[in-house]
Amino acid sequence: MKKVGVIGAGSWGTALALTLSGKGHQVTIWDVNPQHLEELQAKRENVRYLPDIKFNDNMKIGKTVEETIKDADMVLFSAPAQHFRSALENALPYLKPEMILVNVAKGIEQKTLLRMSKIAFEILPEARYVVLSGPSHAEEVGLRLPTTVAVASNDLKLAEEVQEIFMTDRFRVYTTEDVVGVELGGSLKNIIALCAGISDGMGFGDNAKAALMTRGLAEIKRLGIKLGADPATFAGLTGVGDLIVTCTSMHSRNRRCGIMIGEGMAPEEATEKVGMVVEGMFTTEAAYELAQREQVEMPITQQLYEVINGRADARDAVEILMGRDKKHEQA
Amino acid sequence: MKKVGVIGAGSWGTALALTLSGKGHQVTIWDVNPQHLEELQAKRENVRYLPDIKFNDNMKIGKTVEETIKDADMVLFSAPAQHFRSALENALPYLKPEMILVNVAKGIEQKTLLRMSKIAFEILPEARYVVLSGPSHAEEVGLRLPTTVAVASNDLKLAEEVQEIFMTDRFRVYTTEDVVGVELGGSLKNIIALCAGISDGMGFGDNAKAALMTRGLAEIKRLGIKLGADPATFAGLTGVGDLIVTCTSMHSRNRRCGIMIGEGMAPEEATEKVGMVVEGMFTTEAAYELAQREQVEMPITQQLYEVINGRADARDAVEILMGRDKKHEQA
Repeated sequence: MKKVGVIGAGSWGTALALTLSGKGHQVTIWDVNPQHLEELQAKRENVRYLPDIKFNDNMKIGKTVEETIKDADMVLFSAPAQHFRSALENALPYLKPEMILVNVAKGIEQKTLLRMSKIAFEILPEARYVVLSGPSHAEEVGLRLPTTVAVASNDLKLAEEVQEIFMTDRFRVYTTEDVVGVELGGSLKNIIALCAGISDGMGFGDNAKAALMTRGLAEIKRLGIKLGADPATFAGLTGVGDLIVTCTSMHSRNRRCGIMIGEGMAPEEATEKVGMVVEGMFTTEAAYELAQREQVEMPITQQLYEVINGRADARDAVEILMGRDKKHEQA
Repeated sequence: MKKVGVIGAGSWGTALALTLSGKGHQVTIWDVNPQHLEELQAKRENVRYLPDIKFNDNMKIGKTVEETIKDADMVLFSAPAQHFRSALENALPYLKPEMILVNVAKGIEQKTLLRMSKIAFEILPEARYVVLSGPSHAEEVGLRLPTTVAVASNDLKLAEEVQEIFMTDRFRVYTTEDVVGVELGGSLKNIIALCAGISDGMGFGDNAKAALMTRGLAEIKRLGIKLGADPATFAGLTGVGDLIVTCTSMHSRNRRCGIMIGEGMAPEEATEKVGMVVEGMFTTEAAYELAQREQVEMPITQQLYEVINGRADARDAVEILMGRDKKHEQA
């Protein structure tokens, strides 16, 4: 059994802490919000983000980052993508070289356009770093419904260690070396989820949404290949799998936000209403800039970028996408 | 404007007849069921399969196959896959070499393991044959909701003719030469839709279903490549697009049938309850045999085959799929 520190007690961090402690690992979880931390301690339950699931006895609430990480074999970061850098910097004094760092944040740092692993290696060049991603709503993992994810690391042996630590009969873990592809798939699908929500909110049907998801996956893959990802990854769990779950489920905040925009609400207002981080809003800006820089055609991302920035109406954007020239499918 | 004969007035044949006549083409539609044909004539509406949408004035009901096809520029076959051979044979005396034949049936002929185009070319080696497929619930096309499909032909020029005939601002058509890939994607996704339904019926969540769809797409692609398809097709509208729409929507009969099986109903009983053809039941048998013949690993198809044939319980099948060895994702 391992000692695991979890930084960030949102729904996903909590669900993974439950999975790990349920398997017998010694888990300590901590959150940056002191009030939330107190509630976790008092209720032994994540009332805010993953209610009605009691914590296992071998799951502790850390009072400080130091206490949470101390002597850990593995540290799990589950902060929102835009806060991963500060979460890692806060943990830095207590990290040891042999500790495994697992990150589950999905996104691109807006001000630097860096993927999460780039940030990690910038701060800790020798980090034993693994990314965990895949189609995995926290609510379902918390309820022990069957779930499948991938863990990616440049060091396959390290990925296999993490696979071993997490794997249960309800939480199936695959390994891969394609860190770039896994990170991009997990991040960019939030753009398409926002669009899928907009399509739903405008009253379009499943046909339109499936087309959007298909063409969306194609443009994600185009950018991914340009940035060095393995094309096969986008056909896998962290690519199409995560895209499907995010675009079709009401669990997805990105999709819920999109629905409100599609119904006519202003993007900022919709984001506020969701009440949690809508990562896709940041990712759209970052992906738009990356696409410009890398000269990759991403028509869906571009239209969403215009909508978010108030330069296009969602309805016009759909008409523009539907009205493009007659095309060969692979063109 | 073109003259178009439509053979088969199910929901999909009717929706396409509406699309074509809405664009100004002269459409005549016919159905093998005389009672259904009478109703179409009397009501000028497909009360059975696509209710509440009135036929356009330039849409006629054919009294015979001959009347339906006579002088047509294009004949659209929308019979169920297991009846395509007889539909084509019935039409044969009235077909002329210059007529374009478009088939929208999705399936594999069970007794021969042939794809639809193989049947067509067996009967008519010089046929100007095109397959139309993609994520397209008839109900939504009937309501003019945005929809995107692909047309495939060995002869790209011919595909482009058909693209031109169908394309509207609500019905977007892409072309491709990959007939094998388009036919297999459209057929095999029904297997995964049945499984997705079973997963839903058993009370599993979106995570499990997304994993199933991802791994299902991988095994469809494996068989497809072995049979000569272009791998890229499975990432397109007729591959992942159609898979998504079929696995996530209540419009899908295959999924509805799967849900009942997942809830504990016997496969034959569930099929009967759906009341329309559940193509996935035939396709599973055919794909199982193709996989054996071609030595391709298709674990999901194999488990469903065992369930359909009463040799495995759906719950055990899921446990077997979840309990497989720890794996690399691309292995």
